Amino acid sequence: MNYSEILKEIYAEVQPLLTQGQVADYIPELAHIPPTKFGMAILTSEGEQFQIGEASEKFSIQSISKLFTLTLAMRLEGDAIWQRIGREPSGTAFNSLVQLEYENGIPRNPFINAGALVVTDMILSHACPPGGLDNAHETVLDFLRKLAQNAEIGFDLDVARSERSTGYRNIALANFIKSFGNLRNEPDKVLDAYFHHCSIAMTCSDLARAGLFLANKGRLPWNDEEIIKPNQAKYIKSLMLTCGTYDSVGDFAYRVGLPGKSGVGGGILAVMPGEFSVCVWSPRLNENGNSLAGTKALELLTTLTGISVF
Amino acid sequence: MNYSEILKEIYAEVQPLLTQGQVADYIPELAHIPPTKFGMAILTSEGEQFQIGEASEKFSIQSISKLFTLTLAMRLEGDAIWQRIGREPSGTAFNSLVQLEYENGIPRNPFINAGALVVTDMILSHACPPGGLDNAHETVLDFLRKLAQNAEIGFDLDVARSERSTGYRNIALANFIKSFGNLRNEPDKVLDAYFHHCSIAMTCSDLARAGLFLANKGRLPWNDEEIIKPNQAKYIKSLMLTCGTYDSVGDFAYRVGLPGKSGVGGGILAVMPGEFSVCVWSPRLNENGNSLAGTKALELLTTLTGISVF
Amino acid sequence: MNYSEILKEIYAEVQPLLTQGQVADYIPELAHIPPTKFGMAILTSEGEQFQIGEASEKFSIQSISKLFTLTLAMRLEGDAIWQRIGREPSGTAFNSLVQLEYENGIPRNPFINAGALVVTDMILSHACPPGGLDNAHETVLDFLRKLAQNAEIGFDLDVARSERSTGYRNIALANFIKSFGNLRNEPDKVLDAYFHHCSIAMTCSDLARAGLFLANKGRLPWNDEEIIKPNQAKYIKSLMLTCGTYDSVGDFAYRVGLPGKSGVGGGILAVMPGEFSVCVWSPRLNENGNSLAGTKALELLTTLTGISVF
Amino acid sequence: MNYSEILKEIYAEVQPLLTQGQVADYIPELAHIPPTKFGMAILTSEGEQFQIGEASEKFSIQSISKLFTLTLAMRLEGDAIWQRIGREPSGTAFNSLVQLEYENGIPRNPFINAGALVVTDMILSHACPPGGLDNAHETVLDFLRKLAQNAEIGFDLDVARSERSTGYRNIALANFIKSFGNLRNEPDKVLDAYFHHCSIAMTCSDLARAGLFLANKGRLPWNDEEIIKPNQAKYIKSLMLTCGTYDSVGDFAYRVGLPGKSGVGGGILAVMPGEFSVCVWSPRLNENGNSLAGTKALELLTTLTGISVF
Repeated sequence: MNYSEILKEIYAEVQPLLTQGQVADYIPELAHIPPTKFGMAILTSEGEQFQIGEASEKFSIQSISKLFTLTLAMRLEGDAIWQRIGREPSGTAFNSLVQLEYENGIPRNPFINAGALVVTDMILSHACPPGGLDNAHETVLDFLRKLAQNAEIGFDLDVARSERSTGYRNIALANFIKSFGNLRNEPDKVLDAYFHHCSIAMTCSDLARAGLFLANKGRLPWNDEEIIKPNQAKYIKSLMLTCGTYDSVGDFAYRVGLPGKSGVGGGILAVMPGEFSVCVWSPRLNENGNSLAGTKALELLTTLTGISVF
Repeated sequence: MNYSEILKEIYAEVQPLLTQGQVADYIPELAHIPPTKFGMAILTSEGEQFQIGEASEKFSIQSISKLFTLTLAMRLEGDAIWQRIGREPSGTAFNSLVQLEYENGIPRNPFINAGALVVTDMILSHACPPGGLDNAHETVLDFLRKLAQNAEIGFDLDVARSERSTGYRNIALANFIKSFGNLRNEPDKVLDAYFHHCSIAMTCSDLARAGLFLANKGRLPWNDEEIIKPNQAKYIKSLMLTCGTYDSVGDFAYRVGLPGKSGVGGGILAVMPGEFSVCVWSPRLNENGNSLAGTKALELLTTLTGISVF
Repeated sequence: MNYSEILKEIYAEVQPLLTQGQVADYIPELAHIPPTKFGMAILTSEGEQFQIGEASEKFSIQSISKLFTLTLAMRLEGDAIWQRIGREPSGTAFNSLVQLEYENGIPRNPFINAGALVVTDMILSHACPPGGLDNAHETVLDFLRKLAQNAEIGFDLDVARSERSTGYRNIALANFIKSFGNLRNEPDKVLDAYFHHCSIAMTCSDLARAGLFLANKGRLPWNDEEIIKPNQAKYIKSLMLTCGTYDSVGDFAYRVGLPGKSGVGGGILAVMPGEFSVCVWSPRLNENGNSLAGTKALELLTTLTGISVF
Repeated sequence: MNYSEILKEIYAEVQPLLTQGQVADYIPELAHIPPTKFGMAILTSEGEQFQIGEASEKFSIQSISKLFTLTLAMRLEGDAIWQRIGREPSGTAFNSLVQLEYENGIPRNPFINAGALVVTDMILSHACPPGGLDNAHETVLDFLRKLAQNAEIGFDLDVARSERSTGYRNIALANFIKSFGNLRNEPDKVLDAYFHHCSIAMTCSDLARAGLFLANKGRLPWNDEEIIKPNQAKYIKSLMLTCGTYDSVGDFAYRVGLPGKSGVGGGILAVMPGEFSVCVWSPRLNENGNSLAGTKALELLTTLTGISVF
């Protein structure tokens, strides 16, 4: 089967799942999305593109943004970031404060909320130097527009506001990390940038393109520009596999077998090194907070192609 | 020995301790206090007053305020408060978020910071009803002025500001509790009231008088006014004994044997039911966060008088 | 009302409670006891004795034995015991291994199972010195016979065996503490002694007498023999109040207001310093593992007499 | 470079590391091994073998045995094993009881000690059915002899005894799991089998051969016998990557990028799907309990070959 046929088969198989699972409703604005949406896009290293369903419809990337803020922080600070964040799976719920308390404010990895707040703080310190302009939001947005080759990508300000006004637990996290001295900027400023990053709206097609450098040793295939070094691309993929899908990384690796990063908006971005980048979107989530139909779609993809990292 | 002689002996014995221990420096404003201060005041149920040292100097009552906000909340809501707060020792550090996470936002008792924030939220809901005036600060202040019979008692606004600008952990606590739905008001408003209550400045003499109703079955001895019911006074004293001195209630009960409530400003208020109310102040703290010389002074008091609850 | 009348009123009031709560069934042998039993005995410092119901029927003292093994260890080692055990409330379930792990094998207090295993280990080291006879079981038994003035007190070997063969969690605890180096003897030997101590069978009348030295400044009232020093008696009572009734010490202090020690056999021993020792027994337990009717009986006792430590 | 040259370069580069790190000394018998040993063996899917250093010297495989007991349990019980064990990284120290307590006796994955005890219990139930012979030890030994094509492989009974007599924490673990009902056999019997499995002595060459089926879709390359199904082989490799190297799976994936399983004896077995199986041995461990020089050797292997799963 070629990718077109595989996408068709996946699309058929996931239909019964589109009414299962729950849309994340703790961000009120996300609860408005029609919950049976499904889109999927594959981009190969050779530049071929395949897609099905609502792959050209924008959705809230939410935690998938953590993949790109991490990449940006590695560009800006290199290995120095590991002095302020760990790179081990958390083994607990994705927003747990317990682990932070026992480990003195050092988040376990950059893909839990606590870690992404520290990553955002790093970007803020570069983007908004003392006395300089305040352009932290744009720094991340511009990076995503470039990776996805789409200048139309923007924030969904309703989502950002919605999350800001109800995100008590993230406010708690940021202040807790600050109390350990692991934020350089004020918590309110870090939170504002963080909620904006999460609110970015993109399509499956955009995200698959934006992730292609990870399948291509850190370079953009269309112009050979180096986004990050080859070993850094390897590092990020290892982090995706061990920490990218909340408290179900073992289950995701077991079933899918690809490095992936999910978001509560229902998107999952995954890559097969040397082969392809893939993004799937379906809003209803399983009990671990990953897209229910999306996880199944990726499991089918590696089963039908016989391709996984294992 | 009578109380005068006992106070003299205590004063002599604690002198070598006044240079030991550490002043709480996480609230910058508190770090300015001369650290070798020592004051102690005893008020008996019969109305006699004994004092020594700097017993008439104001200090920041800090967590001792939790005793009075609890009393106020019991007056306002009675036993209903136990639906939102526990009454068991925490067994962990006084501002731990771990316990809150495992117990879904219900603080273990009203004397840890988390519990006092919920108590403050209760008072706010009464003092600042929707559409009404905002007089939460004054409600607590007026209550303390009345109990201490001193209209001069006020906030130390420098301390309140100092704590507000560095109290990231308390901000984290309030937002975390809010994320579990156990605050009715916005975290910022609750925190503002909480920091004001902690900043109230009183003397040993003021505090001993303000606590006398607890030694007197809930009534003010000078006019027989009922502040709280006799069984509520018993309840509060049992909470002081089991939860009043941070993570060293066992040690405090073991050494002192009186219900007490301490604050990081260096004050400790204790009562012997039917006999007396006593307040001691010395800014340097032991490793558990209680006044080092103050704890020793109370231990000497129960040893020299032979009076304790055990 | 005198004590006779009070006991009659208590007896009447608790009748409806005797069918509520659950008998501890994790020790199979305990599940055979008729669950509606109720007995209560009061011994005053002056030597008067009052009792009602099945106060002369033997039951398994279980964790109440921890009170007497602690007393024995304090006689043998004095304050040195605090190098191997804490004296703070645990704040978690009574047999939690979590706390032990975070605190490196030092149990929080002598009344949780972990602490009692360390206390038992101390007694073993004295009772069974290298090369000497093995008389650890008898050491504790003799001590209880003397305190209760009853040479008939003995082990219930069926209970000891029953607990030994199903006590996996206690076996885990002992081996865990040993792994931290905080047992001197082999875990199997410590467990054997511990299960024997818990299996001792006594009556309410026996236990009230055995606890009388705690109400009498450490001395046996009938011959003025010093069991422990006055300040040690004070210490033990403070530990009872802050740690004696599992994870509900706050609630017990709040409702009853007396230092007490409970066991899963349904017994509770409490003392009012200078006044009396009291033991109540009823097998059905509340959700915290304390006798349901027994806790209510003690609450009524302090309410009807108006006597508590607060 | 071919594998021979790569092994020579690795051998040269790790020499300075052979005096760093600490030999595991909690198993007394392991402390006797000369600590500067280093061996490494690669077996390709095509049947080529390359080795260097002490690759033909036996060492204690310790936790690497967990890989083979898991494989055996999956053969015996299939997916049913996931009802009694999770498949997520633990996020805490490898022998933590805390996680077990919070998750009611269900170990997080089969590669932590708790999980391996449950796996051993499963094998016991099959190998030693009621009324049948007791051949649990031999079941695992025979399986390893077959996979490694070496009938000489055996237990090191001194190591097994040494671990048995000092393994208090594992005894605690087994009894704790039993207290939750998640062992079918008595803890002593499970522990005896577990300690025997850990004590098996093999060479790098043996282990590389024994792991080759994992690089070969579950089949032995020399006779095409199916050891486990292809998707089960994929599952096991995903578990190795996310859970195979104690509390440093993130770091190991980041640096090495291969599914691996380590043991405190200093061995690490890793596989590159479709390419090779590799085993390295050096007794000194890094702070995470993995062979210090061994981890570096594997990192060099993936760097020099440019081959990893990412």
